[in-house]
Amino acid sequence: VQPDVIPLHFVPSGSGLTGNAPPLLCELLNMLDHLLQTGETSAIDLSALPLTPADLDWLRATLGPGEIAVTLHANGDSTLEETAHAGVWWVTHRNEQGVVGAQFVEVAFVPELIKAHPTDVADGRERLASTIGD
Amino acid sequence: VQPDVIPLHFVPSGSGLTGNAPPLLCELLNMLDHLLQTGETSAIDLSALPLTPADLDWLRATLGPGEIAVTLHANGDSTLEETAHAGVWWVTHRNEQGVVGAQFVEVAFVPELIKAHPTDVADGRERLASTIGD
Repeated sequence: VQPDVIPLHFVPSGSGLTGNAPPLLCELLNMLDHLLQTGETSAIDLSALPLTPADLDWLRATLGPGEIAVTLHANGDSTLEETAHAGVWWVTHRNEQGVVGAQFVEVAFVPELIKAHPTDVADGRERLASTIGD
Repeated sequence: VQPDVIPLHFVPSGSGLTGNAPPLLCELLNMLDHLLQTGETSAIDLSALPLTPADLDWLRATLGPGEIAVTLHANGDSTLEETAHAGVWWVTHRNEQGVVGAQFVEVAFVPELIKAHPTDVADGRERLASTIGD
């Protein structure tokens, strides 16, 4: 007869929350102040912090869903989603196999990755001029 | 016996192209020069021009597909897709029933609609401060 076995695991209290996520809200508040005062963008590299999936879910739910979502297809897909807090963007980079490689919260009027660079615009202008000239 | 019938339709020459689209490339070239020289954005309202679906397809194929696509959910969906020419964005606004209401080509480093406005950022900052204070 198989005895009743109560499997024991050491799990964090509650549901995987470590308490490392809430302090990030204070950091975001400082970053928003910095953006409003200077126009300078900043980011938190979530991959570099001791955060569990539950911590990330809590942070994302607390920031809430926004109206703008950006996808960028270049060496894998990146998504940049504005949260319910304008200027706070949830950024996920995936490699070509679809695996999440890095995750950031970026505080910016517009994430840097979305901006067209003047040199690229100038290159496109030349190609368009050639198209017309043909 | 059913006779052989050759259906006749009067169709525009070729496949619906009116010749109204190619001149828009020259206009885009001027708009790109203006962007590079002044940083100012501009747009062509495609809905206001006598363009057929074939003209729009031709214009879009000529500009080519880019790497960035933005969706904006607010009173219907808008999509803002960068073309293969950096700084040239294809913008489509749909109403809540999904019907295309307006279509633009916007020339900008970043389309205006994507930028978070400082007043909205300040509002979000206040809400975040309240969240932390709770």
